[in-house]
Amino acid sequence: MNFPSKLIENAVEELAKLPGVGKKTALRLVLHLLKAETEDTKQLSEALVRMRTGIRYCKTCHNISDMEVCGICSNPLRDRSLLCVVSDMRDVIAIENTAQYKGVYHVLGGVISPLEGVGPSDLHIQSLVERLPSSGVKEIILALSPTMEGDTTAFYLTRKLKEYPARISSIARGVPVGGELEYTDEITLGRSILDRTAYSQI
Amino acid sequence: MNFPSKLIENAVEELAKLPGVGKKTALRLVLHLLKAETEDTKQLSEALVRMRTGIRYCKTCHNISDMEVCGICSNPLRDRSLLCVVSDMRDVIAIENTAQYKGVYHVLGGVISPLEGVGPSDLHIQSLVERLPSSGVKEIILALSPTMEGDTTAFYLTRKLKEYPARISSIARGVPVGGELEYTDEITLGRSILDRTAYSQI
Repeated sequence: MNFPSKLIENAVEELAKLPGVGKKTALRLVLHLLKAETEDTKQLSEALVRMRTGIRYCKTCHNISDMEVCGICSNPLRDRSLLCVVSDMRDVIAIENTAQYKGVYHVLGGVISPLEGVGPSDLHIQSLVERLPSSGVKEIILALSPTMEGDTTAFYLTRKLKEYPARISSIARGVPVGGELEYTDEITLGRSILDRTAYSQI
Repeated sequence: MNFPSKLIENAVEELAKLPGVGKKTALRLVLHLLKAETEDTKQLSEALVRMRTGIRYCKTCHNISDMEVCGICSNPLRDRSLLCVVSDMRDVIAIENTAQYKGVYHVLGGVISPLEGVGPSDLHIQSLVERLPSSGVKEIILALSPTMEGDTTAFYLTRKLKEYPARISSIARGVPVGGELEYTDEITLGRSILDRTAYSQI
């Protein structure tokens, strides 16, 4: 693409570095900013720089936070006997939005992926092991995506944590609520039968 | 969505104001920036602000430019007898990329759209009328999108420009190169028959 202006070209190239943003999309965004007020662009830029330079990570759970300890870890109403291990911040947001979980979290910062060069030492696994003894955690819920990498990480964690006296569980895999049986893939449907839940204890 | 940090929330909200970017996409972009270097975010922000505050419009053709007169208008090799009227900068880039056009441009800055409250006075139509007498233009090519708004604008322009002694043409409508006849919509196919081009003059 030939741009009529170096300034536009620069802005497009910087935007196109973002994931899922190609040059055409970047140009559309640039034209939108040009039509909007100058103040809008300044606000966007400042929000991004403030976010990038001001962000901190909770020293306990490694979730993103504005303070040294995040709002969940410092909340006295959260159940400290329940620990949910997730891959990244988005998973915390997703689980928090369900309003079904009242425990605390541990954010690994990714999953083990030899193809992308991510090994156990690149994740916050050591700090999880060190955190547990004084934590009073009775159950560790592994809430990792049901992918090859997620399953590998879960397997690694169960071995790594087997000395610690807590129940280790995984979030349930099965047919999504509102999902049609006939359109569910065989592996999920198979697992939903194996992991069936009882209506009554009889 | 509940965000663990005000800084993240601000950045997500600012990004989600961009067209085609929802909160989930914005969060993905924010997480990408957090994983990348701080310098990358600063570069992106600076490029956007520099672009927004430094941009100028060519005083002749209203195309975006770094200088008072854009590179196309000031290029002595361009054919000043050919003037192509387009809706916005993207169209100029698209036509320039074909390398088939050597004339100059006039950027309207949009098309007439009563639904969006855009009338002829909101576009650079008056400056087009004023520009023509001293321009030496012999042919005006209307390169507007074949939509209701584009056709309305083209119709308005042909009436507005009928006193000026130049040929007024439109870019060809027809079956796209590489397109299959049977999958072409009837209106396009119908026009491609009406506007057929001769192989020879006999």
